Amino acid sequence: MKVAFTSDNIAGASDAVFHAMMEAAQGDAMPYGHDDGTAQVTAMLAELFECDLEVFLVSTGTAANVLSISALTPPWGSVLCHQDCHLLKDESTAPEFYAGGARFVGINGADAKIDPVVLKNIIGQKKGDVHSCQASAVSVSQVTEIGSVYSVAELQVITDIAKSAGLPVHMDGARFANALIALGCSPAEMTWKAGVDVLSFGATKNGVMAAEAIVVFKSSLEEKGLSFERVVQELGFRRKRGGHLHSKMRLLSAQMQAYLTDDLWRTNATHANTMMAMLQDGLKEIPDVVIETPAQANMLFCRMPLAMIDYLQKEGFGFYTGRWEEGVIRLVTSFRTPKEGVQAFIDAARRF
Amino acid sequence: MKVAFTSDNIAGASDAVFHAMMEAAQGDAMPYGHDDGTAQVTAMLAELFECDLEVFLVSTGTAANVLSISALTPPWGSVLCHQDCHLLKDESTAPEFYAGGARFVGINGADAKIDPVVLKNIIGQKKGDVHSCQASAVSVSQVTEIGSVYSVAELQVITDIAKSAGLPVHMDGARFANALIALGCSPAEMTWKAGVDVLSFGATKNGVMAAEAIVVFKSSLEEKGLSFERVVQELGFRRKRGGHLHSKMRLLSAQMQAYLTDDLWRTNATHANTMMAMLQDGLKEIPDVVIETPAQANMLFCRMPLAMIDYLQKEGFGFYTGRWEEGVIRLVTSFRTPKEGVQAFIDAARRF
Amino acid sequence: MKVAFTSDNIAGASDAVFHAMMEAAQGDAMPYGHDDGTAQVTAMLAELFECDLEVFLVSTGTAANVLSISALTPPWGSVLCHQDCHLLKDESTAPEFYAGGARFVGINGADAKIDPVVLKNIIGQKKGDVHSCQASAVSVSQVTEIGSVYSVAELQVITDIAKSAGLPVHMDGARFANALIALGCSPAEMTWKAGVDVLSFGATKNGVMAAEAIVVFKSSLEEKGLSFERVVQELGFRRKRGGHLHSKMRLLSAQMQAYLTDDLWRTNATHANTMMAMLQDGLKEIPDVVIETPAQANMLFCRMPLAMIDYLQKEGFGFYTGRWEEGVIRLVTSFRTPKEGVQAFIDAARRF
Amino acid sequence: MKVAFTSDNIAGASDAVFHAMMEAAQGDAMPYGHDDGTAQVTAMLAELFECDLEVFLVSTGTAANVLSISALTPPWGSVLCHQDCHLLKDESTAPEFYAGGARFVGINGADAKIDPVVLKNIIGQKKGDVHSCQASAVSVSQVTEIGSVYSVAELQVITDIAKSAGLPVHMDGARFANALIALGCSPAEMTWKAGVDVLSFGATKNGVMAAEAIVVFKSSLEEKGLSFERVVQELGFRRKRGGHLHSKMRLLSAQMQAYLTDDLWRTNATHANTMMAMLQDGLKEIPDVVIETPAQANMLFCRMPLAMIDYLQKEGFGFYTGRWEEGVIRLVTSFRTPKEGVQAFIDAARRF
Repeated sequence: MKVAFTSDNIAGASDAVFHAMMEAAQGDAMPYGHDDGTAQVTAMLAELFECDLEVFLVSTGTAANVLSISALTPPWGSVLCHQDCHLLKDESTAPEFYAGGARFVGINGADAKIDPVVLKNIIGQKKGDVHSCQASAVSVSQVTEIGSVYSVAELQVITDIAKSAGLPVHMDGARFANALIALGCSPAEMTWKAGVDVLSFGATKNGVMAAEAIVVFKSSLEEKGLSFERVVQELGFRRKRGGHLHSKMRLLSAQMQAYLTDDLWRTNATHANTMMAMLQDGLKEIPDVVIETPAQANMLFCRMPLAMIDYLQKEGFGFYTGRWEEGVIRLVTSFRTPKEGVQAFIDAARRF
Repeated sequence: MKVAFTSDNIAGASDAVFHAMMEAAQGDAMPYGHDDGTAQVTAMLAELFECDLEVFLVSTGTAANVLSISALTPPWGSVLCHQDCHLLKDESTAPEFYAGGARFVGINGADAKIDPVVLKNIIGQKKGDVHSCQASAVSVSQVTEIGSVYSVAELQVITDIAKSAGLPVHMDGARFANALIALGCSPAEMTWKAGVDVLSFGATKNGVMAAEAIVVFKSSLEEKGLSFERVVQELGFRRKRGGHLHSKMRLLSAQMQAYLTDDLWRTNATHANTMMAMLQDGLKEIPDVVIETPAQANMLFCRMPLAMIDYLQKEGFGFYTGRWEEGVIRLVTSFRTPKEGVQAFIDAARRF
Repeated sequence: MKVAFTSDNIAGASDAVFHAMMEAAQGDAMPYGHDDGTAQVTAMLAELFECDLEVFLVSTGTAANVLSISALTPPWGSVLCHQDCHLLKDESTAPEFYAGGARFVGINGADAKIDPVVLKNIIGQKKGDVHSCQASAVSVSQVTEIGSVYSVAELQVITDIAKSAGLPVHMDGARFANALIALGCSPAEMTWKAGVDVLSFGATKNGVMAAEAIVVFKSSLEEKGLSFERVVQELGFRRKRGGHLHSKMRLLSAQMQAYLTDDLWRTNATHANTMMAMLQDGLKEIPDVVIETPAQANMLFCRMPLAMIDYLQKEGFGFYTGRWEEGVIRLVTSFRTPKEGVQAFIDAARRF
Repeated sequence: MKVAFTSDNIAGASDAVFHAMMEAAQGDAMPYGHDDGTAQVTAMLAELFECDLEVFLVSTGTAANVLSISALTPPWGSVLCHQDCHLLKDESTAPEFYAGGARFVGINGADAKIDPVVLKNIIGQKKGDVHSCQASAVSVSQVTEIGSVYSVAELQVITDIAKSAGLPVHMDGARFANALIALGCSPAEMTWKAGVDVLSFGATKNGVMAAEAIVVFKSSLEEKGLSFERVVQELGFRRKRGGHLHSKMRLLSAQMQAYLTDDLWRTNATHANTMMAMLQDGLKEIPDVVIETPAQANMLFCRMPLAMIDYLQKEGFGFYTGRWEEGVIRLVTSFRTPKEGVQAFIDAARRF
């Protein structure tokens, strides 16, 4: 049996999602987000997050991230993020492009989470000095690039530092659902109640073909003395200017509606996380395998003998290796990862 | 009966297209364009255009246009286009954003087509003068913003001027199929054989939900002494940097495959153009209606009494008005416009 | 006798200016504008303009213009200016570069002055429509590119239109002194009292080697509900970011101090304007010479037989020709143009 | 006696320089670099560097650096430089602005010099991967930000790594003369013969008011298969576009001519370096003072008791402190630092 743990972006869409897409392809609808579906997505997200918010649908995670940040920083600012985050590692120079040439400053910290002491130190430096780029925004990744998850308390420490400096906070939630299931808290608790102002609410990695929502939280911004209206205005114009305003927006809104209906998004993420937990538990028992960072959501980095890697690949299992230190592999589960596939992988590793 | 002539972007997708999308949503596929479907789309377009080419799929027409041009101009250049083209009228400042702050110079000319005399004059000005932005590329729209179509001979005149100055030519083919059906020539004859180097091959307005192909023609660029490899390299990096590289690329490639299979794209455009011809013929006979620009493809601008406009809207017909001079309305047909709807519109106008 | 009417940028500096530069080269001074001279320039300009203001010294006119505008427009905005202004004709794509890819829209109007009817019409279009670039600022040139001068009343009409739309107004005053002398009003009357918010106060063309002041007027901005502090903050960071913050700022402040001392700037401009008036009066009497636009300051465009142009050039007179319609030449006088040189030119033209 | 070791940018200009400026202020000269002086500067630098080159004069060091790099990198590239270099520490986001949103990647290494092993490792990563920014240029600082100097052999190691990857090399030579005197080699040996392609040839910190030369070396670029003509073309247009093309260019060329005449530039740097050597020798003998990095040119970082810092400041000596770790001060000598001032500083420190 062949199973791929390559990434959660290799799986297609949940049945409910593509049925919704099919329906959306029928009949006429007003373009550019003036369809009924888009309005409903906003209403559904407002209910889910229990607050006033505004939503901008786009079709890629990079677009969601860089557009979000472009509305938060002046071009002479610096955006503080973890040195191993997706923005800095996997999005080419999209961040600088969209932010008009602002700088993205990588901060270190264990488990791919921003170290609050370093953050505080950097934020306090050279304020008002025209020679230095000015700390202007903070971006956190939830789930992080190595599969760890900030606790709500950890998030709060980061956002408090940002808040005391008047800086807005963006969350890259490409795997938002997986993080939420891992923490077991509410969407509100993991975002605006924890000081997050703008969220990339990812769906593409969790059962949707191509749909991400930029969510702007009103109360959070206003508590910092920042203008919700201005961020919303910037995003409206910048989405179009980036070429990310779909004419047949219903393609995106239909996917997002299905994703948010009947808790599909939670169900999918729960499955992915459960499969990862099973995988991790199985691998832990194998003497030659070393878990690098304990997986909290649906991604695991572990280390194994090169011969074991070869063997597993020859057996037909898919995963990335060769991108990090020797012997390190990455395993990712998705809403569609079969339980038998996980078991087969563990068995094969043990067999070796 | 209620029919909308608002735009061709209000219609959804052809059956074959959404069936293909449904299939694409199943199973696993490699991300970021490494799926089989993307390779097949390139092969299909190479066959269709009868030449060496490279293809970059994106999900919006604006992205196709501005990415294409971003690979052709330095930031100190000027892109010459018609003053009423989509780039200048309907894409915010996406052109300047993607072209790094190059200038877009609007040229006049009848029927929304670039006047070759003006073009030649501007291209010849202040070459090498650092104070003046340097003519660096030409962009033509086929179909134009008012529904006219360049003949192949007209295109050739424009591209010859560009060629003699060593400038690359981009074609905004958001309605490529409609133009091709109108001219009755081959895709090759309307593009690289006529001196076009990079094409925005639109599909979204003609039966697809969200898929456009940037097509780069090798021989055309090389005849001008420009590097095909360099343009292709730039597009690869710039698509990612613009946030336009879809992870689940098969969503785009599946649509495009279906669109190109069994001549669906021609069938759809033929229907749209036929409906427009019928609409135009009907309206011509009505004394109070004045055709502004003879529709050659699927778009018509005409002038009618305000009371007639009100009447038609109250009867439930959809179309844009109030954006141009008083009394001017725009009518657009699509692959899905029903014949009875066209007849009903003509009847209603005549009845009034 | 050989005299050059080529441009006012070919003359060097007034004696007082280079003596001040010499003194500034002695001893130590704090860098980056923290020298005493820079503070004094601000005080002198505040007195001259009779209001609260902030000053940013730079060394080129293009820098003054494009930095000013960069602080006034978002990147999705459009800056409205005359189609023949310096920004659009002679500064490469510096405007788009500094404004982050905003668009510069050329408006027509007689005598190189913005037509208020056209301005009003454009400003009112498509407000809030994300597909269209949004009118965000207005820039006027005083003196214009063809040597005409807006009256205070004409300025007021333009700025009133801007004000009613909440848009800031920039004035390109590369030849500010020449315009002021022409109008005979006070600096305040020609700027903030007439609705100008940010001024490029030029000195380089009028007796200084390289020094221009960006002047930001507090009350004018605040009357429009715009933030003076924000514009000042943006300029501080953007000047550095543009590479325009001189370390030995006293080179610029010394020139500007000398320029503003003992009315040197008025004396110089009065001389240049007087020489132009004499030149114009002389040329008017010559049958073959046609004044294109009546010179109000120190620049004149006129038309003469090609043979006369040749003759004058052979006689050793310098001026630009061949850049406009056949037979058109441009004559510019400066603070240093000798009276005998003007007479000699008139005599030579008459002789021919 | 009060002496300032604050920076070499607080001293004014050498006598020969301001005399040259005075002369340049007389009479007429063609604008925008078409004056005779600019041509002579190019000839003088070609002789000095013993090779074919092109020169672009600008008035600030930041402009020289960021313009140089803007001509060498695509916007999807990354420029590799030391993490503590001036580009990253003291030029706001000018680098990203001019490079169109390329990324600047800080590399560590002892003594503020790029570690070649790290450089080689980074250059080799993810070549061609559209998700990663592509190593596109290398920038070295000579003198570095902490006063150390690369040996020619050290430079060669860095540039060889760049060359084997086909990457151009820029040198920030804001203190070029001080480095050259420290090494005792020829200008050619420290630049193009050592693999440097584009140089910011600083003069402002060494006896000039405001003049820097961007020097482009032909043979070096061509050995890497890069086009000299293209870099020169880019710089021509980009200097204007940045607002850095002076109309009265003779202000810059006159300074540079004087600077290069009669070895003034060497004499000035020799004095500054000698004063620093004397200062360092004196401080070494004082028990409480710890030299942080041995000064090789005209800049020294040392550590001393806080009470000693206070005492020296009260005695009237100027220097920066409080910007680095507690107790660290920076001392900089210039062409004008008096010997007695150095002695007085040593005496005061010893006395304490």
